[in-house]
Amino acid sequence: MTPGLERLSVHEFVRMELPLDAFLRACAAAGVGRVALLRANVEAYGVDRAASLLGELGLAVSSYSSLGYWTTGCTHEGVPWSHADNLRVLDDAVRLGAPLAVLGPGPLGDRDLNGARRRIAAGIAELWPHAAERGLRLAVEPLHPMFCPERSVVTSLKLALDLVEPAPTDVAGVAVDSYHVWWDPQLDAQLRRARERLFAVHVDDFILPLPAGGRRRGLMGEGCIDLAGFRAAVETLGYRGPYEVEVLNEELSALPPESAVARIADSYRSFAGV
Amino acid sequence: MTPGLERLSVHEFVRMELPLDAFLRACAAAGVGRVALLRANVEAYGVDRAASLLGELGLAVSSYSSLGYWTTGCTHEGVPWSHADNLRVLDDAVRLGAPLAVLGPGPLGDRDLNGARRRIAAGIAELWPHAAERGLRLAVEPLHPMFCPERSVVTSLKLALDLVEPAPTDVAGVAVDSYHVWWDPQLDAQLRRARERLFAVHVDDFILPLPAGGRRRGLMGEGCIDLAGFRAAVETLGYRGPYEVEVLNEELSALPPESAVARIADSYRSFAGV
Repeated sequence: MTPGLERLSVHEFVRMELPLDAFLRACAAAGVGRVALLRANVEAYGVDRAASLLGELGLAVSSYSSLGYWTTGCTHEGVPWSHADNLRVLDDAVRLGAPLAVLGPGPLGDRDLNGARRRIAAGIAELWPHAAERGLRLAVEPLHPMFCPERSVVTSLKLALDLVEPAPTDVAGVAVDSYHVWWDPQLDAQLRRARERLFAVHVDDFILPLPAGGRRRGLMGEGCIDLAGFRAAVETLGYRGPYEVEVLNEELSALPPESAVARIADSYRSFAGV
Repeated sequence: MTPGLERLSVHEFVRMELPLDAFLRACAAAGVGRVALLRANVEAYGVDRAASLLGELGLAVSSYSSLGYWTTGCTHEGVPWSHADNLRVLDDAVRLGAPLAVLGPGPLGDRDLNGARRRIAAGIAELWPHAAERGLRLAVEPLHPMFCPERSVVTSLKLALDLVEPAPTDVAGVAVDSYHVWWDPQLDAQLRRARERLFAVHVDDFILPLPAGGRRRGLMGEGCIDLAGFRAAVETLGYRGPYEVEVLNEELSALPPESAVARIADSYRSFAGV
């Protein structure tokens, strides 16, 4: 691993169209030592093959996404997503050496937002003992409210913390992504509340103005988020874990994989001052 | 005014490309009795002429937007927007017979989100006595967080209430738009907190899925918001004011003005059960 990049983890979401091995080799070639992996791509490649390749390339896994899917209408190959599916994903996380599994609580399947959130609370209550049993931690990641109907009904850090609060602090926590939470007037107060439940931090920027037909997520420094302030806030709270970079945008997607990862590493260096 | 439409107010934002008189005549022809007006269009038409035409057509003004513009970089014809500009807009609201002036606190002019919010708090503190002197009320409208950099740094109902809290309850309050706040896990609690400060309610829907290249704002019933629940919540709190409809989307914009207003009236009838 290249010195200075110890705390960088590149999220597979950046280039999710690549087969797993192409993504992992691009990361290793760029001197990156950690990756965050996506279930679909790992399953397509094979979990044990993935674990072997990670070992071969000397890559550690910072987190594995996603499981949960508790809201109305969540399916897996046409059948409702089940508790057994969640247990299988936890087992896979263990095989990959991931210390953390990130929840995808579920989109809004109908108009019942409060009902969806109650189902998620019940799902976490059922799941966390199985994570604890396996030595794994679980994180809820609040998404930007603009993704509320399609991707997740967990729209604020406060709600994410409310949802994990009944579970032990060393098992259930949150993943906080600057792009998803930067606008939140309660961000500082809720970060302080999170403290030991802050299991993962994602860094990226909110691009201004909206690119024509494009995505608003950019590399650190490309947008309007005060990322120096965000980094200072989480470091002050004692966060010493990885910074996952999960930027999905047209410009990065158009680059050869190794160049995309190298650009991420450059952006991370400016962000982290390393 | 057509019976049943007493509490409907059509917001000029729906057809802001029309000259003021064309918009007002379309509303009157559709049996609508109230409108919410936009400063730019009123000023282009002339404030006194607008007041006369409103009288002629028997239309009442529910609110007048916008003033404020306290964040970095807000200008009016190239010069910084000033306190004198705000006083002029308040005077115009009085001439139009509007009981309520809606604040446009300002976009994010730099990366200092907390600084922008402090300037808005100071601006409201300076402005509300002038509104009170004129018998006017002021409302802060939280906008959806996806509009945070470009349109407003007031991204939640809680923040809007925090900002108006130092001012008297009968002068400074909030305008709550279902499209902007529906995702908020604290919506019910903050509506209860707002109570007598709930000066205006806007109704519209969040369209799912995202129309190709289109806007996500739709008429009531076209999207995923539980509007029956939203209406019940504000009525239970004692809200008896107008429901402003402020839907800006491609489909409505393509209709002849009178048909657009008639569609809004139909959607309002279903929403209100009248």
